[in-house]
Amino acid sequence: MLEQASQLIRSARYPLLICHVAPDGDAVGSLTGLGHALRHEGLEPILACSDPVFARFNYIPGVESIVQEVNTTFDLVISLDCSDMGRLGHFPQMPGFDDVPLLNIDHHLTNLEFGDVNLVDPHASSAAQVVLRLLDYMEIPLNADLSTCLLTGIVSDTRSFSTSNVTIQVMEAALRLMKAGASLPRITQHALNRRPVSAILLWGAALTRFQIEDRVAWTGISLAMRRAAGDESNGDTGLANFLVSADGADAAVVFAEREDGRIEVGLRAVPGFDVAQVALQFGGGGHALAAGCNLSGPLEKAQSNVLAALRASLVRQRNT
Amino acid sequence: MLEQASQLIRSARYPLLICHVAPDGDAVGSLTGLGHALRHEGLEPILACSDPVFARFNYIPGVESIVQEVNTTFDLVISLDCSDMGRLGHFPQMPGFDDVPLLNIDHHLTNLEFGDVNLVDPHASSAAQVVLRLLDYMEIPLNADLSTCLLTGIVSDTRSFSTSNVTIQVMEAALRLMKAGASLPRITQHALNRRPVSAILLWGAALTRFQIEDRVAWTGISLAMRRAAGDESNGDTGLANFLVSADGADAAVVFAEREDGRIEVGLRAVPGFDVAQVALQFGGGGHALAAGCNLSGPLEKAQSNVLAALRASLVRQRNT
Repeated sequence: MLEQASQLIRSARYPLLICHVAPDGDAVGSLTGLGHALRHEGLEPILACSDPVFARFNYIPGVESIVQEVNTTFDLVISLDCSDMGRLGHFPQMPGFDDVPLLNIDHHLTNLEFGDVNLVDPHASSAAQVVLRLLDYMEIPLNADLSTCLLTGIVSDTRSFSTSNVTIQVMEAALRLMKAGASLPRITQHALNRRPVSAILLWGAALTRFQIEDRVAWTGISLAMRRAAGDESNGDTGLANFLVSADGADAAVVFAEREDGRIEVGLRAVPGFDVAQVALQFGGGGHALAAGCNLSGPLEKAQSNVLAALRASLVRQRNT
Repeated sequence: MLEQASQLIRSARYPLLICHVAPDGDAVGSLTGLGHALRHEGLEPILACSDPVFARFNYIPGVESIVQEVNTTFDLVISLDCSDMGRLGHFPQMPGFDDVPLLNIDHHLTNLEFGDVNLVDPHASSAAQVVLRLLDYMEIPLNADLSTCLLTGIVSDTRSFSTSNVTIQVMEAALRLMKAGASLPRITQHALNRRPVSAILLWGAALTRFQIEDRVAWTGISLAMRRAAGDESNGDTGLANFLVSADGADAAVVFAEREDGRIEVGLRAVPGFDVAQVALQFGGGGHALAAGCNLSGPLEKAQSNVLAALRASLVRQRNT
């Protein structure tokens, strides 16, 4: 796949690079990182994302060049950190999109392999790590800007090397990027150690309702709580990751009511347990340790249904 | 200092190793890590701590050998991760303590150099990193158990490589320890990603009272809140580290009322600011980015005094 991906890139001049909607650090980092590398090789990449990029990523070199609309021509599409076409936002509806090859670079286990060439490694910590491997294969040298982008991806997706997939290879990649000029403290300070005040207030409200029973830590976020906190994201505020750290928890769930009345369910497990099967039961998906699904409301009904299924699943898992 | 430290160790047979009271991951990790190394060299070290070790550290090889009382003879004392004698707990009052040499291994800027030999490096991420340097000097080989102990120290004190002092050398040390058999995911899962349920409830209560004004994020924990949450620690629940992540905060403070009515003040700054000078003003101390002091109550009075001083200090710092 590395050879085919490399050939696609070598034969392009104006590649359109797209990361997923509601971009996180790995989306922005792999997008800008690959952008720097291709520019170094003489290409003229266009960097795009359907959604605006959070201000906390402003330190990333080249982040200002990311556009939300594309009006110029392109001869290749490279999808970054997207598990399916839907994650590309409005771009697939664009004229000309279907006329050029599509290179799919990702690390999600659930990637649908929707590209003409699919460079997908579910064992990689991040899309940025897959990009780094491609650059090594193509013998494109690292520099400080490029390394800052890619290390942002690794740091974001591993929550600063604290997830269960941080291998020696991940640490070696981080070290190489630091030696090439990326400042790890600067990245953690901006990309990781920053939260909107509204998210902190929402945590407070949600944590006072926090419960743990049958080794499941959980809480719910109603629309009223979200509005009181001033939180405008429908997104993950990181609360599920925090709850699964509760002593005695094998799994954690956060139920978040959205503007459209549906309930966003975020599931986490400690290593040794699997919450993906429960997410699948409700039409969702994900990884063993982090999965999600989306149910119709009301909040209380979604809570009792998912909690019952999760309890049953954990009992089965403990007995096998 | 490495040569002198090494000579002290080479001339001992029954060294007494002591880490600080209320032991954290670096205290336990550097204590057990050095214990493994000295046992490998044929010594018979005694591992001690005045306080019991939290159950979340039970995965650390050798943690079960840590004693809280010492009744046997010893011919050397090695202090680990202690900035002053007071941090050694009740051991300095023990018969024989003053009759043997004292080796002081630490990384705190505020270390009082109270040993006969002081191996203190304020630039090191952790006491564990100083221990690793000593083992390298003494050519003591790494193994999986020893590496698990030392990596626990590095991971704990850098909050999983996210503090501002994580250099290339820190990452190289971590990588070497992983290659020698330490499992980073296992360590982060146990040492870092676990919190008492009472601490989570306390966070909830404290975060609903969270405020940010003049770029200072702060909250207070009353004794009533602590009791309602069932929190029995007087210690840092990590809340100040979390609050300083608030968008727009240059500094954060957590005021915690203790059983004795005094107010424990935890101060944090983002890189570029210094809260140690404010802590010093109130008889406390610490680092630029993390400092603390201890005031008489009531809570409201301590809050208004420290907040006023902090605001004034930050204004001065912004103007220089």
